Formats: sequence, C-alpha cells, structure tokens
Amino acid sequence: MVAGMRIALGIEYDGKPFCGWQSQAGGCGVQDALESALAKMAAHPVRVHAAGRTDTGVHALIQVVHFESGADRPESAWVRGTNAFLPPGVRVLWARQVSDEFHARFCAERRSYQYVLQVSPVAPAVLHGKVGWYHRPLALEAMQQAAQHLLGEHDFSAFRAAECQAKSPIKHLHQASISQHGAFYLFEFSANAFLHHMVRNLVGSLVYVGKGEHAPEWMNELLAQNNRAFAAPTFSPDGLYLTGVGYDVKWGLPECGRSIDFLGR
Amino acid sequence: MVAGMRIALGIEYDGKPFCGWQSQAGGCGVQDALESALAKMAAHPVRVHAAGRTDTGVHALIQVVHFESGADRPESAWVRGTNAFLPPGVRVLWARQVSDEFHARFCAERRSYQYVLQVSPVAPAVLHGKVGWYHRPLALEAMQQAAQHLLGEHDFSAFRAAECQAKSPIKHLHQASISQHGAFYLFEFSANAFLHHMVRNLVGSLVYVGKGEHAPEWMNELLAQNNRAFAAPTFSPDGLYLTGVGYDVKWGLPECGRSIDFLGR
Repeated sequence: MVAGMRIALGIEYDGKPFCGWQSQAGGCGVQDALESALAKMAAHPVRVHAAGRTDTGVHALIQVVHFESGADRPESAWVRGTNAFLPPGVRVLWARQVSDEFHARFCAERRSYQYVLQVSPVAPAVLHGKVGWYHRPLALEAMQQAAQHLLGEHDFSAFRAAECQAKSPIKHLHQASISQHGAFYLFEFSANAFLHHMVRNLVGSLVYVGKGEHAPEWMNELLAQNNRAFAAPTFSPDGLYLTGVGYDVKWGLPECGRSIDFLGR
Repeated sequence: MVAGMRIALGIEYDGKPFCGWQSQAGGCGVQDALESALAKMAAHPVRVHAAGRTDTGVHALIQVVHFESGADRPESAWVRGTNAFLPPGVRVLWARQVSDEFHARFCAERRSYQYVLQVSPVAPAVLHGKVGWYHRPLALEAMQQAAQHLLGEHDFSAFRAAECQAKSPIKHLHQASISQHGAFYLFEFSANAFLHHMVRNLVGSLVYVGKGEHAPEWMNELLAQNNRAFAAPTFSPDGLYLTGVGYDVKWGLPECGRSIDFLGR
C-alpha cells in the first residue's frame, strides 16, 4: 500500500455481470474491476475498502469506498479518468479527499437498501436482473403492517444467512416501508447494519404475508423464535439495491443517498 | 411452413444481447431466439413475421408477430411454454389465434417508439444499455417546439439511413412529444411507419436543438432540404423502445401499446 492521500469514492454498479462486491481470485468481483481501474489511474496497486459487501447480482445506486494513493490527482480526474478504465456497468459518481481517520466501512452509521418487485403474469424481459418478480398480486396493506413489526432493535437471526460473519445478530432497523407504483412494489429498509442476506430474507417473508400464507403478526413470531428455518426462503437478488450509506457530516462527504427512479407511470 | 392456425404474439425484449430483431446466419437475432423456442413448442420449424424490425441494441416493450402452426395448443400454452424455452431477455406477453388474413407487418397501421435519455454528469451504470445518456442539461422547451415542426406528413429523407429499404420516404408523424421526469427526458413518437434509423436520427437532431446548436426552426430546414448530411448524427440505440403497434380492432388483438415505466420520482 502506498502512503499518501486518502480518497473516498461514491460508486454506482449493475451487479448482474459480477460475482458480488468482494474481490475474487478470478477477478469477477466489482472490487476487482474498480481496483484495476484505480491502479491504472494511480500507477500503483490500489486496495479499496467498501461500506458494505453486496452479494452476486445485487446492485448499488451508491456504494462508498475509500483507498490510499500517493498519486496527486484532482478529484475530477479520479472520477473521469477512472470511469474511462471501468466497464460500463460500474461508474464513479464522485471523489472526495478525506481525513486519514475516515474508513468507508467502520465510519458508516447507517445503510439503506431498496428492493423492487414487479408483479405481473409474465416475468420482466427489459428489466430482467434489475427487478425481482412475482406472478400474482400481493396484499400491500398486510405487508405494510408486517413491516412495522420489524422496526427497532431486534435479534434478526431468523433472517440471517448461515455464512453470516457479523459479530452480533442484533441490529436496529430504522425504516421498513413498502409502497406500490403501478406493477412495482418498492421495499425500503434502513438500519445501522444488515446481516448477510437479511434484506432478501425480509422481503421473502414479507411476500409470504402478501400472498396470504401468514398474518402480519407472523413477523413477531419469527423475531421471537430466532430460527432461520421458520422464515421464508431467501428472495432473488435481482431487485436489490444498496441505495444509501450514512456518515457523520464531519467527514464532509457528498450526498450518500439515492432512490430507485425507474418506477411508476 | 406448416398449414394450420395463424397465431399472433405480443413480445417484450431487451435488445442489448441481440444483433437486432432480424434473423441472422449466426442466430444472434431476437427472431432466431423466438423461432427456436416456438419450434420446440410446435414440434415443427416456425417462421415469424414481425410488425417492425428493430436495430441492434433497440428494445421492445411490445413487438407483434404472427406465425403459422399445425400444432393444437391453447393460447396460454403458447405463452408459458414458449417462455420456458426463451432466454430471460425475451418474453411472450400474450398469444391470440387470428384470422388467416392477419399479417403482423402489413396490417399494422401505426407504430410507436419511445426514447429515454438520461441527463447526468456521469453515465448510467445500472441502466447502462437501457437509456441513452447526455452529460449536460438540455433545453426542454426548445426541443418541444422543434418536435412540433415534425408533425404531419413529410418527406423524412433527412432522417433516413442510407441502407433504408422503404419504398417511400414520406411518412405521417402523429406524435412527437418530449417530457422531463427528473434526470430523464422521454421522447415519444408515433407514425404510420418509420424509416430506418428515423427515431434515432430525430432524437439526435432534437438534442442538437436542446444543446442550443440550432433553433427549433432548424427542423423545418432539415425537412425541406431532404439531405441526411445536414441533420445530426444517429443517436445511440440504448434508450430506444418499440412501445406500440396499432391494428384495426377487427383483428381482435389485445392491447398493443405500452409505456416506459422506469421513470421519475
């Protein structure tokens, strides 16, 4: 690693062609593509640290990363130059020089995810991989009521993947809301942090409620039982987007929240 | 070709992975994928005829095709069964048995296209290939005024590709409207028929007006000069969607018009 400036980047990516955020031996991670492009700009190897690791097929409207570089480049060059070396499904939105105490992961106080679910008799073709899909109408109000039970601090073990490496299953969910825009249901979640597969597992169980297989109060049972086996299967990654990372204003970062905008007319 | 029933299909597709609608020796056309899936359903070779041939990278929210089959299948089987054999970027929306006089291309009285242009400093990553992109704001009102000049019957040679095989460059444009939805500009066109590259060439010239390179009245000059060389370059296929095909109600087809719905919040 090269000593020098610490730089934060806001990144947007289409998760479909990648095997998730994290660097892999085969180079199929979004991180691999970004580090390779940044190394060309910096003229030295670059290691980036991200606010959150997204799974295979999961997208980011905004991911925040930081890295160190000895190369003296204006912020605009880190944006335009790096984008010239990136595949078209990954874009640097902004770059900002930050203090050496800033860490994209450890300083993040809040993460936001949105899940878009298309409900239609036939699966989406144009938006294949960009939205989840269910073939029958779902009961919006029942799902909204169910989501209310998730708010606050809970042990979310019922919605945690077996491989999850988080130290604690206790997370604080600040937002769990669902809205309908024509054929699309938009699920919005915000928490201090999320467990592995947590959003996709929450969506899976909320859809079970929407289908009428369980009452909204089922969420309370799942939270009380702390048993992954009782909740619904993990929902598809297709419609999942990392949409925000919250930091203290003292770090001086640009806006780190976005919202799905390919919805509803 | 097998004698039997004539069946019409409504089709949605993502044009990005294909070399356009039309069948190619290498099998890279949307038509190839569809004919291959239908042949599996019908258990005999199938040749489809489409309302309009879209270029490489151009999408369809709805394309209408017809074909002949001796196979006796319910309409729902032509939808679900064929979808099981199609790649995920192509979906059959509906199937309808039609009279032997129906022809998807020759009976089509109107075609509609929409073009989505994202205006943002950085190119879209998640919607790469799904929307066109321009890096600076465009003057909406000037483009709207320019579009008005295009309405009605004109010789559209200024917006016609050299390879265009249409018998006449005279077309009747029924709709040419532009609206803004946040970072997206939506261009909507409807005509009896379109020349090769006509929509992309119209968008290119309208964007020139939006940039302030020409006044809205420039459209009248282009129409009067009938010279492709004076108009703007062909715009990217990324944001172009076939969104409707109009037929006489006597053919008894389901609704053949859709609208881009990944816009604006």
